[in-house]
Amino acid sequence: MARPTPLSGFPEWLPDGRLVEQHVLDVLRRTFELHGFAGIETRAVEPLDQLLRKGETSKEVYVLRRLQEDAGVDPDRAGTLGLHFDLTVPFARYVLENAGHLAFPFRRYQIQKVWRGERPQDGRFREFVQADIDVVGAGALPYHYEVELPLVMAEALGALREIGVPPVRILVNNRKVAEGFYRGLGLTDVDAVLRNIDKLDKIGADAVAALLVEEAGADEAQARACLELASISGSDETVVARVRDLAVTSNELLDEGLEELGALLRAAAARAPGVVVADLKIARGLDYYTGSVYETVLVGHEQLGSICSGGRYDTLASDGANTYPGVGLSIGVSRLVSRLIGGGLVTTTRSVPSAVLVAVSAEEARDRSDAVAASLRARGIPVEVAPSAAKFGKQIRHADRRGIPFVWFVGEDGADQVKDIRSGEQVDADAATWAPAEADLWPRVVPA
Amino acid sequence: MARPTPLSGFPEWLPDGRLVEQHVLDVLRRTFELHGFAGIETRAVEPLDQLLRKGETSKEVYVLRRLQEDAGVDPDRAGTLGLHFDLTVPFARYVLENAGHLAFPFRRYQIQKVWRGERPQDGRFREFVQADIDVVGAGALPYHYEVELPLVMAEALGALREIGVPPVRILVNNRKVAEGFYRGLGLTDVDAVLRNIDKLDKIGADAVAALLVEEAGADEAQARACLELASISGSDETVVARVRDLAVTSNELLDEGLEELGALLRAAAARAPGVVVADLKIARGLDYYTGSVYETVLVGHEQLGSICSGGRYDTLASDGANTYPGVGLSIGVSRLVSRLIGGGLVTTTRSVPSAVLVAVSAEEARDRSDAVAASLRARGIPVEVAPSAAKFGKQIRHADRRGIPFVWFVGEDGADQVKDIRSGEQVDADAATWAPAEADLWPRVVPA
Repeated sequence: MARPTPLSGFPEWLPDGRLVEQHVLDVLRRTFELHGFAGIETRAVEPLDQLLRKGETSKEVYVLRRLQEDAGVDPDRAGTLGLHFDLTVPFARYVLENAGHLAFPFRRYQIQKVWRGERPQDGRFREFVQADIDVVGAGALPYHYEVELPLVMAEALGALREIGVPPVRILVNNRKVAEGFYRGLGLTDVDAVLRNIDKLDKIGADAVAALLVEEAGADEAQARACLELASISGSDETVVARVRDLAVTSNELLDEGLEELGALLRAAAARAPGVVVADLKIARGLDYYTGSVYETVLVGHEQLGSICSGGRYDTLASDGANTYPGVGLSIGVSRLVSRLIGGGLVTTTRSVPSAVLVAVSAEEARDRSDAVAASLRARGIPVEVAPSAAKFGKQIRHADRRGIPFVWFVGEDGADQVKDIRSGEQVDADAATWAPAEADLWPRVVPA
Repeated sequence: MARPTPLSGFPEWLPDGRLVEQHVLDVLRRTFELHGFAGIETRAVEPLDQLLRKGETSKEVYVLRRLQEDAGVDPDRAGTLGLHFDLTVPFARYVLENAGHLAFPFRRYQIQKVWRGERPQDGRFREFVQADIDVVGAGALPYHYEVELPLVMAEALGALREIGVPPVRILVNNRKVAEGFYRGLGLTDVDAVLRNIDKLDKIGADAVAALLVEEAGADEAQARACLELASISGSDETVVARVRDLAVTSNELLDEGLEELGALLRAAAARAPGVVVADLKIARGLDYYTGSVYETVLVGHEQLGSICSGGRYDTLASDGANTYPGVGLSIGVSRLVSRLIGGGLVTTTRSVPSAVLVAVSAEEARDRSDAVAASLRARGIPVEVAPSAAKFGKQIRHADRRGIPFVWFVGEDGADQVKDIRSGEQVDADAATWAPAEADLWPRVVPA
């Protein structure tokens, strides 16, 4: 086999990169669990017809076939499986399948890989890890979860600041505000308005105004009002007042939306000051979300796109008899981690778990080194034993190449010594009591 | 969408089952890291031609196709991807791809899902989790790693005893012993002998003897000698003596194999008494392993099959210029976990992370409950806030249904109280200082 080359869109990390990813995942998991989210995993596959229910994503799905099945099998036939492209579709199915065994509102987190056959770009992969939290209710789901969930994500991402993750800004909008405002203007094709507002960053206000006239049935004044709404942003409740000032007429939907948005901004100002910003030009997802919608950027890395998105669904799942509304957000872990590693934002104190390499003085004495290693491990110290009874200089270089800070020398009659190979300091040590400094016990992920 | 039904072969767990699986994975990871194994993950896909290099498994591979690719695409064409069916093939590729960035001998663990299109049975899935450890050398790899790695697995599985995992027995054999013995008898078609010895449990000794004569070129006496070798088992070095007594002639390969096997049994007797048993009828895998081979059964659940298998490869990977020998074992985590859950061997103290439910006295006062929750979480206590300001009896039932042991009542002027809903005891409490008993802090997995 010739030396293989990486597959574009399928990121893999060297051991130190994996340490970064694992640390991010550990911090997310811990934060989610502190907030009472139960972890689940779903299978990687779903029936293709379920994956294709939202037409938009159909082209991105990977379809599976067992090699010994007939070739050229019809991908539309019942039972054909595809890899999931997000964790929301499988979660909705899991909720329906297990509703009788779950207690609602059900809080769950889910950290898994997903696959999309898209053209790979910077921060956009064919295989990537998502970390989702959702709360799903049976029949109803109070609005306060739309306040709580982005704040949990703010806390989770905030807990990563200490390793060098930049601050985040969570941008929020609300379908009810947009729809209520447009309907108040007299515009009824709400999705057409949203679809064109979504193009603002790409084509600019004038072009969007023209499209609103052309495609959304707006006159010039209505189009300008939509653009003025989209220009509103801010992190305090004056946002609400500005929308009210702009609105031609009031209506129940707009009122409800503004009340919700105000509540979110108030809570965020108290609990995560400066993180949550209302940004009324956000339209992506508003075609399927029914209340709040969220996007999250890394401050200083806005061009990377959103690293944590989500919103409220009035119908996350439904089996006819019962409807399950939900709200959730999903962190694009691979996008975040690839920026941390590729952008040189973080580093690790070493690339292997071992804090100690136990040297071997002779192969016949390997069992004594093994015994020292076992003794240290029994007290929670990660250790490996040297691969061979080479000269000590070579054994020290073995540790040095891996960033292992300590080398242990087994002496006669228990007269052991341990050397900090960074300082060169070598001291007497007893495997039953010695411990490294806390900072050296495990590899750490730190700002670069 | 009608209520969906499970897909056979794609196991999913309810939240308490996932707690069991997560605990198993956490214990394995910790043990592997204490032994200095670095964690990596590889992509889920490999080029199909690489997956099919071992002909045997070809029929089990899931082939991928992007939905918008031409239907009926030739699965043999270059670039076609399949899902990996184990973690050894991807690891070998990773080693070749990254050899310049890795320090050898390279110790890695890898815990990921794999996929096989086999017919699902008890303990045999189409999607399952494997947890692998391997050590791979550049050019050479000393035998002592063949002693070390099964003992790491013995320790990892032993650490699961406290949650109710039965004791394990690691069965070992050595390709060199078998091949050296057969060649000493004058049998040269070693693979044919092994293939038939592998049928012993299924068809019995007489039928195997007949096949050895028919297919492996043995005469009656040679066939009987092969069967006598296969009948040898034991956990101490008398095994070695019994093989020597049986061998017609000695040869270098047999001597080397017996020396290795003896060293493994000696080390195992000292470090994991009673766990490792030489079982010379093990032939599975001896066609591609070149030294030690391992299988592991749960005592009392032998019919489940091996839950942890592996061995030594002289050529784990090779790029022509360099050869990378390796030794490793793989735990079938899903097989183990499905038995723990399905067999009722383990249980969990609750199904959600939360130790405390903070009650809400009125929606207008939710922010006070949120503040208590934040204060408890800041000290590492997992907490959720009640979904609504229902009557306290209903809020207590909400906690009870999830197994949350404590309900917190926010009083006027900080006169808070916390109730242990198991005992009914309710006491004054301060969110800045109160903590649950250590046993109640997180859900625990315990013997059923």
